[in-house]
Amino acid sequence: MENRTEIATLGEFGLIEHLTKNFEIQNASTIVSVGDDAAVIDHFGKQTVITTDLLLEGVHFDLMYTPLKHLGYKSIIVNLSDVYAMNAQPTHVTVSIGISNRFSVEALTELYEGIYAACEKYGVDLIGGDTSTSKKGMVISVTAIGEVAPDKFVKRSTARKGDLICVTGDLGGAFLGLTLMEREKRIFLENPNIQPNLEGEDYIVGRLLKPEARRDIIAFFEQNNIMPTAMMDISDGLSSEVLHLCKQSNLGCRLYEDKLPIHERSRAAAFKFGLDPTVCALNGGEDYELVFTLKQEDYDAITLNEEIAVVGYMTDVEEGKKMISRGGNLYDITAQGWNAFQG
Amino acid sequence: MENRTEIATLGEFGLIEHLTKNFEIQNASTIVSVGDDAAVIDHFGKQTVITTDLLLEGVHFDLMYTPLKHLGYKSIIVNLSDVYAMNAQPTHVTVSIGISNRFSVEALTELYEGIYAACEKYGVDLIGGDTSTSKKGMVISVTAIGEVAPDKFVKRSTARKGDLICVTGDLGGAFLGLTLMEREKRIFLENPNIQPNLEGEDYIVGRLLKPEARRDIIAFFEQNNIMPTAMMDISDGLSSEVLHLCKQSNLGCRLYEDKLPIHERSRAAAFKFGLDPTVCALNGGEDYELVFTLKQEDYDAITLNEEIAVVGYMTDVEEGKKMISRGGNLYDITAQGWNAFQG
Repeated sequence: MENRTEIATLGEFGLIEHLTKNFEIQNASTIVSVGDDAAVIDHFGKQTVITTDLLLEGVHFDLMYTPLKHLGYKSIIVNLSDVYAMNAQPTHVTVSIGISNRFSVEALTELYEGIYAACEKYGVDLIGGDTSTSKKGMVISVTAIGEVAPDKFVKRSTARKGDLICVTGDLGGAFLGLTLMEREKRIFLENPNIQPNLEGEDYIVGRLLKPEARRDIIAFFEQNNIMPTAMMDISDGLSSEVLHLCKQSNLGCRLYEDKLPIHERSRAAAFKFGLDPTVCALNGGEDYELVFTLKQEDYDAITLNEEIAVVGYMTDVEEGKKMISRGGNLYDITAQGWNAFQG
Repeated sequence: MENRTEIATLGEFGLIEHLTKNFEIQNASTIVSVGDDAAVIDHFGKQTVITTDLLLEGVHFDLMYTPLKHLGYKSIIVNLSDVYAMNAQPTHVTVSIGISNRFSVEALTELYEGIYAACEKYGVDLIGGDTSTSKKGMVISVTAIGEVAPDKFVKRSTARKGDLICVTGDLGGAFLGLTLMEREKRIFLENPNIQPNLEGEDYIVGRLLKPEARRDIIAFFEQNNIMPTAMMDISDGLSSEVLHLCKQSNLGCRLYEDKLPIHERSRAAAFKFGLDPTVCALNGGEDYELVFTLKQEDYDAITLNEEIAVVGYMTDVEEGKKMISRGGNLYDITAQGWNAFQG
C-alpha cells in the first residue's frame, strides 16, 4: 500500500497550500493569484473570454479506469478547448474540487499533477478555486479565462451560406476508447482475475483519457491570417455541434460521409466492436477537436494543414441538415450525442 | 401537486435556453454571453477579479429547509461577497449546476429565479455555465468576475502593525439560524406532525437563508476615499478570517470581546439555545460580512458609518493572536469555524 495521508490532517487551507505551493505564474497579467478572496488579472486592450465546465464522477468520468492524473489533465483541457473554440488564447484557470474522505492527500496530489501538467503545457496560470468535502463522489469545476484582440473572437452564430465546414484531427476515437473501457470494466466486474486487454488500443484509449486542445489550429489561423466565420469545439459529437452551428446561424448544411476524418485505429476498433465508424464519428463525443466554417476563398490556405479536413458546406435553412452517404443518399443529421439528461 | 416537467423533455440545451431566455444584459462590457463556447468581456484599463465557489448538497446546504429560490440567490451572493472583499465591483457570473432527475424543470426554474434576482439586484450579468445531470445530490458552482481600477484592489497580506480591525454588520446570526433550522429538522424527522416553530426568529433565519453582500461598504469606501490596508469576507467565522489576515500579513492581533457586533435577536437566540454569543460571533460562519484593517488616521472617517465596528488592532507577530475578554483576560484566538474536512 502506498502512503496515505488523511485530508483532515491538513485542513482545507493546509490542503490548498500543499497543492499550490510549487506552481509558478506564467502570465505577466496575473497580479493576484491563489490565496485571496479572488484573483486579479490585468487586461489592457484585450477582451476577456470566460468558460466553465463541471465534471461529476459517475457521469463524466469513471474512476475505475481513469487515472487521477489523467482526470486532472483532462479537466483543464476540456475548458481550454472552449477558449480556443472562440479563437482566443487561454491565460488562467480556477479549479474547484469536491471530494469525499475516501480520497487521500496523495490521491489529490496526483489529480493536481495532471492539472499542473496541462497548465504548464498550455501556458496557463492556476489562480484560484475552492476545495470542499463532498458526501459522495468527486466533483471538479473548472473555469478558464482567456484573451483575444477585439473583433478577433469567433462565435457560433456567424456562419454564412456556402461556407465550407471543416473539422480538425479525427473523430470517434474517444467514443471507441470509452466503449473499450466500459467493456473491459464489465469483464473485470464479472471476473476480477481477468486483466484488462488493451493491447493495440493505445490510440483510442489515449483519445479518451488524454485529450489535447487544438492550440496548434488557432496558431495556424493567426500565422496564415485566416478567420473562420463560425467555430465551436466537438465535445458532444459532430452531429450535435453542426446542428448548433446551423441553428445559431439560421442555416442548413450538407456533410459528406466519405470526408469524415476517422483514424485507422478507430476504424479497426469500430469493426471489432461491430459499430459503424461513421456513426462513431458523428455521434461519439469528447474528441475535443474543432469544427469551423470558412469562406470558400480560404480553401487554398487551409489545404496547407493536414490536420484540417473539409467535410461539407452550409446551405439555406430550407435545405435542411443532411448527410450525403457513400452511396449518394441523403440522411437527416440528428443529435444522438451523449445527452446529459437521458436516463 | 404543482406542475412537474421532467428535465429530459427539454434536454440540456433546451433547458439552458429555457432558463436563460428572459435574462437581460446589464453591463456594456458583455460582448458575448450565454450560448457560445465561452463568454467575451471587454476590459479596457481595468483589472479583472475572478473568484469561484462550490456549493454541494448535504455539505453547504440542506434542501429540507432551504427554498430553491433562496439557494440560487445565496449561491450568487457568496461569490459577489468575495469580489467586494477585493474592493472590486462584480460584473459577471457563470453558473454550473449538476442535478439528479429527482428535480423538475419547475424546481430548477425556481433556483434560477433566485440566481436572477441576485444578479439584478447587484447589477451583474450571467454569461455562461454548464448544466449536467448528477448521480446524486445537487452541485452548484459559481464563478464571479469583477473589475477594479489598477492598484485599488485590497489583498489579505497587506495589513500593518497598529492598523484597526473593523467588521461590518453583525456576526453569529447565520450560525444561530443554522442551529435553529437543524433543531427544527430533528424535531420534524422525529415527528412529522409537528410544524416548525420559527416564530420571532425571522432575523437569524434571514441571515442564514438570504444573506446579502456588502456592496454598500465598498461604495462608502469609494465615496469617502478610504482604502482598507487588508480585507476579506467572513464566510468561515471571524476567528478563522482574522487568523488568515494575521498569517498572510505576518502580524498578531488583539480583539475586544465587548466590541464584537452582535444583533439583539442573535443574542436572544443564543440565550435560548444555551450558547455563548461571543463564541457564535467568533466561530459561526456564513455571515458574509467584511473584516478589514485600516490605518489609525482613518478612524474618524469610518465612524460616519454605523454599519462598521472597530473590534481590535493588529500587533507584531510576537504578541500572538488574542482576544481580550470582558473580564480583562487574554485568550488565544483559534479557528473553530466550520472546517470542510472534519468528519
